[in-house]
Amino acid sequence: MSLTPLNNIGEFALLERLAKLINIYNKDKVIKGIGDDAAVIKPDIDLVQVVTTDMLVENIHFDLSWMPLKHLGYKSIVVNVSDVVAMNAIPAHVTVTLAISNRFTLEAIDELYEGIRLACENYKIDIIGGDMVSSNQGLIISITAMGYINKENLVYRNGAKPNDLICVTGDLGTAYAGLLILQREKKTFMANPYYQPDLQNYEYVIEKQIKPEPRIDIINKLRELNILPTAMIDISDGLSSELHHICRQSNTGCRIYEDHIPIDMMVSNIADEFYISPITMALHGGEDYELLFTIPLNQYDLIKNIDDISVIGHITDANEGMYLINNIGEAIELKAQGWDSFKKEE
Amino acid sequence: MSLTPLNNIGEFALLERLAKLINIYNKDKVIKGIGDDAAVIKPDIDLVQVVTTDMLVENIHFDLSWMPLKHLGYKSIVVNVSDVVAMNAIPAHVTVTLAISNRFTLEAIDELYEGIRLACENYKIDIIGGDMVSSNQGLIISITAMGYINKENLVYRNGAKPNDLICVTGDLGTAYAGLLILQREKKTFMANPYYQPDLQNYEYVIEKQIKPEPRIDIINKLRELNILPTAMIDISDGLSSELHHICRQSNTGCRIYEDHIPIDMMVSNIADEFYISPITMALHGGEDYELLFTIPLNQYDLIKNIDDISVIGHITDANEGMYLINNIGEAIELKAQGWDSFKKEE
Repeated sequence: MSLTPLNNIGEFALLERLAKLINIYNKDKVIKGIGDDAAVIKPDIDLVQVVTTDMLVENIHFDLSWMPLKHLGYKSIVVNVSDVVAMNAIPAHVTVTLAISNRFTLEAIDELYEGIRLACENYKIDIIGGDMVSSNQGLIISITAMGYINKENLVYRNGAKPNDLICVTGDLGTAYAGLLILQREKKTFMANPYYQPDLQNYEYVIEKQIKPEPRIDIINKLRELNILPTAMIDISDGLSSELHHICRQSNTGCRIYEDHIPIDMMVSNIADEFYISPITMALHGGEDYELLFTIPLNQYDLIKNIDDISVIGHITDANEGMYLINNIGEAIELKAQGWDSFKKEE
Repeated sequence: MSLTPLNNIGEFALLERLAKLINIYNKDKVIKGIGDDAAVIKPDIDLVQVVTTDMLVENIHFDLSWMPLKHLGYKSIVVNVSDVVAMNAIPAHVTVTLAISNRFTLEAIDELYEGIRLACENYKIDIIGGDMVSSNQGLIISITAMGYINKENLVYRNGAKPNDLICVTGDLGTAYAGLLILQREKKTFMANPYYQPDLQNYEYVIEKQIKPEPRIDIINKLRELNILPTAMIDISDGLSSELHHICRQSNTGCRIYEDHIPIDMMVSNIADEFYISPITMALHGGEDYELLFTIPLNQYDLIKNIDDISVIGHITDANEGMYLINNIGEAIELKAQGWDSFKKEE
């Protein structure tokens, strides 16, 4: 296979290449996509628009030695869509901006695009614009996502009330367990380039790290059951950090129970291998992109039988603080130690 | 003055610092700004929304050895607003994402923010969201801007018709002349650190390079006079490249006249100093952020007396090609040699 240096192609040709991949799914809303100074959209008059933006930087947010470009493209859409979903909104559009160093070939960028395209196809999202620039070092992906919702159905972080139930989707710590495995395999491979990593036993956690999915299924399910969460956030920096956001903005405290926190058996086993307690991985491991939300206590019967939702505790008054009740009944204060790109590792 | 390393601060504190600077000017449209998973906006039901995004990368798009951070912040808003204006729309919101290496201090980021804030104040734009991440090297600024306009008043690149007049605002090649001066002074300074650059004679061109302004005044003026351009684009990559966009998308040719192209005397003098022809600087120098637009021939009387607009030629049939008529009457084919971040320098 022959590889094509990017400087044989040029910025406009690269943008046109992206434009050609695009299907417009929300034809009623997109008046003009890529190709002019700006895109033009016409939101539905009954809906409000939510807007979010996230940047992924090589060797800070991803490591291309174990992250395939196609998955990276997919994940870069997911992390943005997940924020739209956390407002209870339906994602509709994205703009995609790449800064690319000349160590990347056209074929590599096509791989990345393919992942972006696939995510957009899965979630019926239109790529309405973007920018394509060169970088001196590494790959940077900056995405802005937009979605729509009835104003009455918006869910903020600040609506939790004492006695509300605290719910999470899926299981937690899984993406972090995947990261630990991938980093270990990379280290072994660096020491011995003939080493063939055997990741077969770890598929579940690795997939969660390299190909997470936003929980659009859950917000659809809640809508179907007429459940409107009082507060919601997606879990990108770890359960503890996200609970802090909800409690701080809602001016409440909380109490969650270790034995209610969903942790997959494989994650527990990996935690043991790495001498980390499973609950630490669930509280502080990031990138699960599950949803954390609160509902009024009287909706428990509606939610208790939904697959993939766990009730992990309840909201309290602010002066009762934020606590985890561990398996031997001790109350341990919850600290926000989620991932913060500027803090030094401790 | 004591300087504060960024890792003493943390991502959330940095975002909150940005949030505090923000005035919401379009209160009817912004339901929720920074502080949740996504911002929430409610566009006017009579208007369409335009969306554009641009990324600026250190040492590709700017050089901090001569670009003050405050000006960089200002310019990063301008380049995006200019794209909104080129659709004939009024800018309203931006999201601001920064990737910052740990060589920057908190005080440096505050300088950058101050420029961003000042531009937003000048143009009455709301910062509705953003992201803040670390980078291994250098500073990257990614901005998405949104604006609004009646659908009937949108101006695309593709509406130019044969015989339409081709107009430009301001004068051209100026920002490139400023860049040449700044690069020369840097070179001299690198060779002799005791050298004190004397930029006093070059203020006009340097200001155009480090603090350009989007031509909101012009689109307001055109609206006042009931002139709706048939096509419009902002000049970020040089006149020639932008004319190519308009002619290709409108399926036309064009004919422009060297003696009609507005070039400031200082730019001509700098061109002479650098052994470049002034017309080359005007055709291929980027970053002027002036507007290039076309109007029907019969609107000439309306436009001829507007300060700061020059009629430089007219649109032709596509089969007549794209030509510059030089000062001795020769027709020279127009090539698109604007700035392209991936092409090698020739």
